[in-house]
Amino acid sequence: MLILGIDPGLAIVGWGLIESVRGTLRPVAYGAITTPAHTDIEARLLMIQNDMEALINKYKPDEMAIEELFFNTNITTGIAVAEARGVILCTAHKLGVKISEYTPLQVKQAVVGYGKAEKQQVIAMVTSILKLPKPPKPDDTADAVAIAICHANCSASAMGKYFNQRK
Amino acid sequence: MLILGIDPGLAIVGWGLIESVRGTLRPVAYGAITTPAHTDIEARLLMIQNDMEALINKYKPDEMAIEELFFNTNITTGIAVAEARGVILCTAHKLGVKISEYTPLQVKQAVVGYGKAEKQQVIAMVTSILKLPKPPKPDDTADAVAIAICHANCSASAMGKYFNQRK
Repeated sequence: MLILGIDPGLAIVGWGLIESVRGTLRPVAYGAITTPAHTDIEARLLMIQNDMEALINKYKPDEMAIEELFFNTNITTGIAVAEARGVILCTAHKLGVKISEYTPLQVKQAVVGYGKAEKQQVIAMVTSILKLPKPPKPDDTADAVAIAICHANCSASAMGKYFNQRK
Repeated sequence: MLILGIDPGLAIVGWGLIESVRGTLRPVAYGAITTPAHTDIEARLLMIQNDMEALINKYKPDEMAIEELFFNTNITTGIAVAEARGVILCTAHKLGVKISEYTPLQVKQAVVGYGKAEKQQVIAMVTSILKLPKPPKPDDTADAVAIAICHANCSASAMGKYFNQRK
């Protein structure tokens, strides 16, 4: 199964593709979609839509995993992130990619085993789990890979449960 | 000039088209895009994208005016509204429609002449200004028409200023 992890944003959309084969995870590609500051938001949203379409058409992921939003800190930034997230969800659905959502707590729990892990611990674990030569940059990309790993683990354990029930 | 006013939402997107010819406003069409509850958000966002595309392709508005978001009350609902708003902005820009944004205060000021006007006063003024047989329903549609009127008035006065400066 090819999983696309997404860390949504307006300035930076982190993305990470991993392949999960019977519990073994392999990195496929990762990077970031970036949009220029001092540009109308509608133009930046369309860039994100176009780049997401190109990404999905190139790699044809089976599933997408994306972070749920929480607005605790900056609400103005939060609105822009939600607007970008809406475009990403819509684009993935249009192209037939199944979508799952995870909270930051679930992602940290799945990757580090501890829901209140620090960002640097998450990045170190992502690098270690996928045996990467160095941590993915920017941090948004590392976060996106972490979300993909979370989805691979959650799907695997869900499948495990399913098979256990069927015995 | 044909102006499309939009009151963004996930369950209901109010829309109103008015024609502005040398300061005279004429209603063209108005209504609402609705999406079903208990449905994945990505499916609802795609419905909004498809309906917005159909609306813009049918009427070919010159400009779109949309309300700015403020999250004072329900942040969870606010995230969904922002996600829908992102899809709407992206779709309009893709189809070449110029976009302007107004705060609720600006809309009330332009339509009622008083920034703290009640919703019912706004609806009554919209009905009166456009000489409609009855108030547009649902309220989201009336709000969308109000946003279009606000843009028509702001554009007209901006043009007035421009011509005044050129004298």
